[in-house]
Amino acid sequence: MSYDKAAVRAVLDKLAADGRDALTAPEGRAVVEAYGIRTPGEGLATNPEDAAGVASALGFPVVMKIVSPDILHKTDAGGVIVGVADAAAAAEAYRTIVRNARAYNPDARIVGVQVQEQLTGGHEVIVGAVTDPTFGKIVAFGLGGVLVEVLRDVTFRLAPTSPATARSMIDGIKAAEILRGVRGAEPADTEALADLIRRVSDLVTDFPELAEVDLNPVLATATSVTAVDVRILVDPDAGKTPQRFTRAEILASMNRIMRPASVAVIGASAEDGKIGNSVMKNLVNGGFAGAIHPVNPKASEILGLPAVQSVGDIPGDVDVAIFAIPAKFVPAALEEAGAKGVAGAILIPSGFGETGNHELQDEVVAIARKHGVRILGPNIYGYYYTPQHLSATFCTPYDVQGGVALSSQSGGIGMAILGFSRSARMGVSAIVGVGNKADIDEDDLLTFFEDDDHTQLIAMHLEDLKDGRAFAETAQRVSKRKPVIVLKAGRTAQGARAASSHTGALAGDDAVYDDILRESGVIRAPGLNDMLEYARGVPLLPTPKGENVVIITGAGGSGVLLSDACVDHQLSLMRIPHDLDEAFRAYIPPFGAAGNPVDITGGEPPSTYRNTIALGLSDPRIHALILGYWHTIVTPPMTFAELVVDVVEEFRAKGVHKPVVASLSGDVEVEEASEYLYRHGVVAYPYTTEKPVAVLGAKYRWARAAGLLTDS
Amino acid sequence: MSYDKAAVRAVLDKLAADGRDALTAPEGRAVVEAYGIRTPGEGLATNPEDAAGVASALGFPVVMKIVSPDILHKTDAGGVIVGVADAAAAAEAYRTIVRNARAYNPDARIVGVQVQEQLTGGHEVIVGAVTDPTFGKIVAFGLGGVLVEVLRDVTFRLAPTSPATARSMIDGIKAAEILRGVRGAEPADTEALADLIRRVSDLVTDFPELAEVDLNPVLATATSVTAVDVRILVDPDAGKTPQRFTRAEILASMNRIMRPASVAVIGASAEDGKIGNSVMKNLVNGGFAGAIHPVNPKASEILGLPAVQSVGDIPGDVDVAIFAIPAKFVPAALEEAGAKGVAGAILIPSGFGETGNHELQDEVVAIARKHGVRILGPNIYGYYYTPQHLSATFCTPYDVQGGVALSSQSGGIGMAILGFSRSARMGVSAIVGVGNKADIDEDDLLTFFEDDDHTQLIAMHLEDLKDGRAFAETAQRVSKRKPVIVLKAGRTAQGARAASSHTGALAGDDAVYDDILRESGVIRAPGLNDMLEYARGVPLLPTPKGENVVIITGAGGSGVLLSDACVDHQLSLMRIPHDLDEAFRAYIPPFGAAGNPVDITGGEPPSTYRNTIALGLSDPRIHALILGYWHTIVTPPMTFAELVVDVVEEFRAKGVHKPVVASLSGDVEVEEASEYLYRHGVVAYPYTTEKPVAVLGAKYRWARAAGLLTDS
Repeated sequence: MSYDKAAVRAVLDKLAADGRDALTAPEGRAVVEAYGIRTPGEGLATNPEDAAGVASALGFPVVMKIVSPDILHKTDAGGVIVGVADAAAAAEAYRTIVRNARAYNPDARIVGVQVQEQLTGGHEVIVGAVTDPTFGKIVAFGLGGVLVEVLRDVTFRLAPTSPATARSMIDGIKAAEILRGVRGAEPADTEALADLIRRVSDLVTDFPELAEVDLNPVLATATSVTAVDVRILVDPDAGKTPQRFTRAEILASMNRIMRPASVAVIGASAEDGKIGNSVMKNLVNGGFAGAIHPVNPKASEILGLPAVQSVGDIPGDVDVAIFAIPAKFVPAALEEAGAKGVAGAILIPSGFGETGNHELQDEVVAIARKHGVRILGPNIYGYYYTPQHLSATFCTPYDVQGGVALSSQSGGIGMAILGFSRSARMGVSAIVGVGNKADIDEDDLLTFFEDDDHTQLIAMHLEDLKDGRAFAETAQRVSKRKPVIVLKAGRTAQGARAASSHTGALAGDDAVYDDILRESGVIRAPGLNDMLEYARGVPLLPTPKGENVVIITGAGGSGVLLSDACVDHQLSLMRIPHDLDEAFRAYIPPFGAAGNPVDITGGEPPSTYRNTIALGLSDPRIHALILGYWHTIVTPPMTFAELVVDVVEEFRAKGVHKPVVASLSGDVEVEEASEYLYRHGVVAYPYTTEKPVAVLGAKYRWARAAGLLTDS
Repeated sequence: MSYDKAAVRAVLDKLAADGRDALTAPEGRAVVEAYGIRTPGEGLATNPEDAAGVASALGFPVVMKIVSPDILHKTDAGGVIVGVADAAAAAEAYRTIVRNARAYNPDARIVGVQVQEQLTGGHEVIVGAVTDPTFGKIVAFGLGGVLVEVLRDVTFRLAPTSPATARSMIDGIKAAEILRGVRGAEPADTEALADLIRRVSDLVTDFPELAEVDLNPVLATATSVTAVDVRILVDPDAGKTPQRFTRAEILASMNRIMRPASVAVIGASAEDGKIGNSVMKNLVNGGFAGAIHPVNPKASEILGLPAVQSVGDIPGDVDVAIFAIPAKFVPAALEEAGAKGVAGAILIPSGFGETGNHELQDEVVAIARKHGVRILGPNIYGYYYTPQHLSATFCTPYDVQGGVALSSQSGGIGMAILGFSRSARMGVSAIVGVGNKADIDEDDLLTFFEDDDHTQLIAMHLEDLKDGRAFAETAQRVSKRKPVIVLKAGRTAQGARAASSHTGALAGDDAVYDDILRESGVIRAPGLNDMLEYARGVPLLPTPKGENVVIITGAGGSGVLLSDACVDHQLSLMRIPHDLDEAFRAYIPPFGAAGNPVDITGGEPPSTYRNTIALGLSDPRIHALILGYWHTIVTPPMTFAELVVDVVEEFRAKGVHKPVVASLSGDVEVEEASEYLYRHGVVAYPYTTEKPVAVLGAKYRWARAAGLLTDS
């Protein structure tokens, strides 16, 4: 697209010269027209006769609006009259508007009255761009009027947008159907609308000082889109972007931090109950194979390891310094660690930003920057990296190796992760506390885990993002390779208030987070337990090749609930072709219901489960199975579990890998059966039809976003 | 309100005489006007000149519409022209409309063209009434146009409605704010709208043959409501209502069935693996104290009890006959049981309506009716009533007594109920399988449990309701005394399809179920596990007196997630008054955050938890507490659990009963701590911030609907 950037620059220069921060309507119109956005025919009138003349030249009806740099909300000022039908009415409307404007604000400078072609028909939509504190420039799209204002039916994306992304915005609102024309209404030219969204997003990208651009309404007909009203605010600070490290810089630091050859524990202690003692024990007892250097000016050895007075006294290189000393001593110790050339400073102590002590936190960051040290924390429990047997934390050690990497912004949530992992025997590669995120944040972790062969899935609890754009861009790339699950806390108005008092972070608008995380391929977990269950289950399930999900159930009642859950989690129940239906029917009693769910009925022997599951695995048109088990004497829970594992493994050996999840209804023996299934890669739960489907739904959300459903 | 019923009857008589089932526009207008509903000024024109004259008399603009008994969708037929501005245009519009109508349907009888005052301004809303297969006459209210058609923003109630219910409909749509006037728009006269809803609901109640009444649009201004278009369909079958028993009749049967002195087992068997053997064992080993009579023509004694050939041979009265024989033998055996005077026939066998054998099911019901016997089932696992140690089922016996009564339509779900109950040690009064619901259904059970002193809460899994109106009316009454929790399966389009293939029941529209269940005070559980957790937790929590919920947390991160969950579950985080804030601050570190959540911070000793919780319990302005625990060495999990139980029991002893729930974050020891808390009446869960808040939310939903929040 070719834009007249010089025209925009001219308007902005004039604005700066005048010391204004809001564009007048004609200025706004000039700016968007320079970006190829159509606006209604119009003229500026400076007296009643003039208004009559301009209006007659445009053709009636016209709409007339006050032009004043001091009046932003024209309607509130009585500064808008619509449906002006002839020349006399135009002159009269001029007088009324000016009189209203003067009454509203006697000091307002009145430039004149804009006389504008009044468009009829079409749909009113809103296209806008704002500068979000988390994500920077974002574009918004919604249907005009009450739909946006009352129902908040609006969607957001990072600017600039691709053509596909712009189109996804138009399909992404709840009332999208309206623009396709319902009940005989005119459809909108959605391609032209998508084009308009791109132009707006390019405009704010090219001119970052445009803090806010509102095209409201835009009138979208079947053949054109016209920005009827344009409102633009300028703020020189709106163009500021946070400091970023390159991917290579991040990896250079993170590789040394996560896989250190040598760590120093500053504040190491021999005294039970001290944090510096717990950290030492966890490093030593956890089996860390690298060098461990206790630093304590008053000790000569701790846990059998020689202690040094200062980091500087350690022979050889040190990759990581773990700080287990009070906050006030951190700056001096960090200077020493920086001089020693550590890659990472793990700041366990609290007493920084979270308690209001922002100066100390800023001072520490400045020292780290000076020495090229990256900081994890402060105010954290530490971190685990199981491939190195590294438990750099004051909590208990954790050693069940596996493919799940987790992080949490809060220590409490970190402990929940640890407890859940241990209880569910979930194999993890890393658990990382990020705390105040004075420096290292989620996109640094994503960048490391992306290339970490020990990590298959990343799950993150977060309350805010310091640089949402960097996160979104990184997640967009990483989620193509590995599922990224995010629990975004503070997602509601009340929640956000709590987040604010907890971290001092600016509360983000949840709708913005939601849209942009989804667009980045992130799987958002609705709650803590969901995040943990997704993290545990998603890596076990093979990636489905297509959307065809089949439910096979011994309990019709479970089948109904599993179907409900499929709809809740955007899974598609396959429409079973006739031949497949016949094939299922061959295995089930005549009163069982084929179709989908396949209801094999309750009194069936193990062979019926086995035959129907084998059919589901063997038919290439079926991409995923959901099993509903009903406890009977004929097929007891462990019999069911063993036959399922047996048939699934038989097909795995043949190279057939499909996700299989199960819901078990029955007496307490179904708990053991569910655990057995889970241990063998079939995500199974007792007493719930929702959880297995939710985990499968998370797998599908990821696979869709990563473009892996090759059969669909 | 006074209605001209004779005018409506006259129109309907004419319609019947003509053999029509749809009212013409003038007839529809006459019917609603007879019920005091305003319609626009109008006249019928039968030629172009006539149209010009009628229009001139009404004043311009007018809207003109085809009148034909054969054209229902006037717009589709090109039979509507709006904004007709003068007499000449009216004549021309007449010609156009008639020409279009003839093109649309050459056989249509054309009565003429309706010329109608064209109203301007105001809001378009829809008011309608339909005959629902489950609930009978229901009224609907929504905002007109795309809001109803695309966003389905519509709400339903049983007709007739009270004034308060009609008002709740106007507040119950998502876009309710629009009618209150947003951004300078005109507010609607909501009292007049509520009045209109009542008139429509009275109309269909008085004339049940009105199958469908559509007032669309109704134009609602600040001063008037006018039904612009009226569409009414008549169906003589629309007035049919299902057979009902009186409350006294239901109780007479149900008391004998649930608390029998004597039961017969038809098809009792001594042979292991037979259903008739399992039932006998469960009755005997379960400890049932009443008389047990095995019935088997080929045995003389079973499990040490004398067997009889037929029910008729049993000496003395028999309350319940449990059928453990194949379906085809049921009719003859039921004749005998009926002759013996049993109150209830428990039909365990399948092979009735669920396999398509509706004739057999109808035959069995007819036999039961003849003898005054009530049927439970067929196609069920049986039922449990623990106060009598009665396990009348082929599943395993269950004996943990408590206040929860459960029912399920599906056997699979029944087994999940049993397993969950046993695993969670949930005390139950009853578990009842209702299966095909050939006779006894949920409102019979509700009526029994309402008066059953052993039951505190009722939880029901259902896929359909045979008589939704009877259920809603009973639930409305019962839920004032005891929480009623419903898991309605088949709530989505896909789910409903599965329900249909499973039970042959007509799939209800979920929006109708949702609104009417809520209006009846029922707590709807979103899923199976939720139903079970609500059933377990809600009775343990004291009923809150008001809406003020306070979160006390050791983990700020949990506080944010708990706040999120409060919003999800419609709980109000109390705005802490200054004096209370000061009181909390006295106990927590200076960098802790008072306000709500009260963040006591992570490193605190047990006394900080104890002091803040005691303050929360003692201050009468606080009505409920949510605790967030963070596992630390200073306050280990069991220390926390014991101090919480201690302080809660201390206040209970003083007569202070407030609901307290807890979320525990920590290593695996929090599991034991959560169980300890739960056993002592504090609903607590590890690794989840959602579940404890969901259970508290369920308690609040019930307390609000039952009008128990006396402090609010």
